[in-house]
Amino acid sequence: MSSTDVAIAWQGTGAPAKIARLSRGVPRFYLFIGSTRTSTIPGISIAGPSPEATLLTPGLDSEYLITGRVISFDVIPMTPDGIPTPAVVSRAVIRAASIPALVIDAGSYLSPKVPHAVLPSKEMGGRVDECAGLSEGAARRLFAEAEELGKSSASPNDTVVVGESIPGGTTTALGILAGLGYRAWGRVSSAGPENPHRLKESVVKSGLRRCGCGGLWEVISCVGDPVHVSIAGFVRGAAEAGAPIVLAGGTQMVAVLAILSAAGAPLNDIVIGTTRWLVEDPSSDIVALVREVAPEVPILYYSYDFGGFPYEGLRKYEEGYVKEGVGLGGLAVVAHLIKGLGKDAVHTAVLREYEGLLGRGG
Amino acid sequence: MSSTDVAIAWQGTGAPAKIARLSRGVPRFYLFIGSTRTSTIPGISIAGPSPEATLLTPGLDSEYLITGRVISFDVIPMTPDGIPTPAVVSRAVIRAASIPALVIDAGSYLSPKVPHAVLPSKEMGGRVDECAGLSEGAARRLFAEAEELGKSSASPNDTVVVGESIPGGTTTALGILAGLGYRAWGRVSSAGPENPHRLKESVVKSGLRRCGCGGLWEVISCVGDPVHVSIAGFVRGAAEAGAPIVLAGGTQMVAVLAILSAAGAPLNDIVIGTTRWLVEDPSSDIVALVREVAPEVPILYYSYDFGGFPYEGLRKYEEGYVKEGVGLGGLAVVAHLIKGLGKDAVHTAVLREYEGLLGRGG
Repeated sequence: MSSTDVAIAWQGTGAPAKIARLSRGVPRFYLFIGSTRTSTIPGISIAGPSPEATLLTPGLDSEYLITGRVISFDVIPMTPDGIPTPAVVSRAVIRAASIPALVIDAGSYLSPKVPHAVLPSKEMGGRVDECAGLSEGAARRLFAEAEELGKSSASPNDTVVVGESIPGGTTTALGILAGLGYRAWGRVSSAGPENPHRLKESVVKSGLRRCGCGGLWEVISCVGDPVHVSIAGFVRGAAEAGAPIVLAGGTQMVAVLAILSAAGAPLNDIVIGTTRWLVEDPSSDIVALVREVAPEVPILYYSYDFGGFPYEGLRKYEEGYVKEGVGLGGLAVVAHLIKGLGKDAVHTAVLREYEGLLGRGG
Repeated sequence: MSSTDVAIAWQGTGAPAKIARLSRGVPRFYLFIGSTRTSTIPGISIAGPSPEATLLTPGLDSEYLITGRVISFDVIPMTPDGIPTPAVVSRAVIRAASIPALVIDAGSYLSPKVPHAVLPSKEMGGRVDECAGLSEGAARRLFAEAEELGKSSASPNDTVVVGESIPGGTTTALGILAGLGYRAWGRVSSAGPENPHRLKESVVKSGLRRCGCGGLWEVISCVGDPVHVSIAGFVRGAAEAGAPIVLAGGTQMVAVLAILSAAGAPLNDIVIGTTRWLVEDPSSDIVALVREVAPEVPILYYSYDFGGFPYEGLRKYEEGYVKEGVGLGGLAVVAHLIKGLGKDAVHTAVLREYEGLLGRGG
């Protein structure tokens, strides 16, 4: 691609044809939300004002994404030093590009006070260092239900963009990848500039020690969470319905690919769509992970550049904060490829959305 | 139109342009479900094996529509004499035409055990002859939430097809229409060949006597239900997002138009899509209702003909049973206009779906 907005980090196989195909579809965004008590382990996640409060983030992200405000609590969705949740960027993009969006609750601690879909077997995940990440029955049911939803809601005319909001998700992604035998230690991303690799590794190893971990479902039950397995089921169903799929996320989406691969699902209609921040992150390695897990899957990324913004909170994105989440990378990729949205338009939309927040805070 | 599959019962204004526009979109089906205890009044609804059991029908219809089986109970979704629920016909059509479908729960007694969307303020409706059909707060919230969902899930490339499953719904539709001042007595449809007009009228009049019924929200609260107001909100949101809309249903959809009209929403992008059975029903008059409530809205109908089927249960559709429900008319209209599905293909799909049921029953 000659574009400076969207670039390719990993070609995979048949990248040009895959990009051409997804560019012809009508994008629809599906945000999977869920909680895992793994995020309450101090130091694992900074996606919330305290470890316990990270449990609320997926619900609040959903409320903001759909309505532009947080409904369940009277809070502004940014850190004390003004770093906005990625839902702010994602909302700016879906509004600027008129991308329809649906939230799907796979096991959120907080049920968002906006219309959303639910998987009937939704279940919050456990602390994987101390107990099961999810019951094996729930893992299987969530996969099957999400597959049904993907099959019944997608069509070949769509481009299905799937994002996630699950604090602690890179740790459970690491668990899934390691449990399935991939060399993932030290390679998953984090939402901050300091990636707590050793802590994540020790949490996951505690989990893996507790279990036999003989196969896919046992691994998910042992060290997984409700979101990755649900996304995998949904993607399989949407692919059966003939839709091309953009996994809008970072290294967590490689765990989704690992689940799909272990479940014997074809990966030909999938690309990863992420951000420059994630691809250039020195503390993680999505390309190495994809090469190992699913080398046929291309990685596209959007070259957001928040360095010129007049707000410290947004500029922090350039310093390794956030990087990914709520699908913000993949959304900008499809907004560019399908809707022809230019980088100026994207950045202006983000700035306006952020200034709307500041107005309410002040 | 020269087609014998789809015909026009009422031209409205600009019917050819409206049909052309919706024919260019990608159809997506949204089934709104909800219960009202009005359906438990003996004689009001035959959409269930007993008056109390009609409360389960929307949930069971949803399970069948999405998966092809009823999950919550071990039942075959047909009457003892073999008349299948309209969900059977709707499922045949969405599968034959690959139409994506999403169930939205606005207040179902039974939460369907399939993935579905929920409106956060979902609330089951009351018996309108004895108490409020819905709290006024719930009516307003459901409208607003459904509007949000319509706005966030539709796009100008879509053709949004909206169906309903709410036993007792023609009675609450009558209430809404009469409460808003339209001449609706004796004009709403029913799911059986004997339309209990006098009973419906007495139920609605009991309800209207209990209330002041000064305006839209009071009327809905007094004699309405969760489904019609939610569909109206959703349609308004989807129209804001630029999608053309097919109200897939019979006289109940005129109550939706009445709510939209009272709420000041534009009706230009809406058509009604129904069945020949409904349009030719001697016991109701959808054309008269539309002429009075929203004369600009065209009525299209699909000429199903079940008379040649080798099964009594399906032939009963020709005798005035069912007629409408779960969007079966509007779905066939768009399957024909957008997907070019011929009548033979539709009828074969219905037959196969029905024979699948019989196989399980026998």
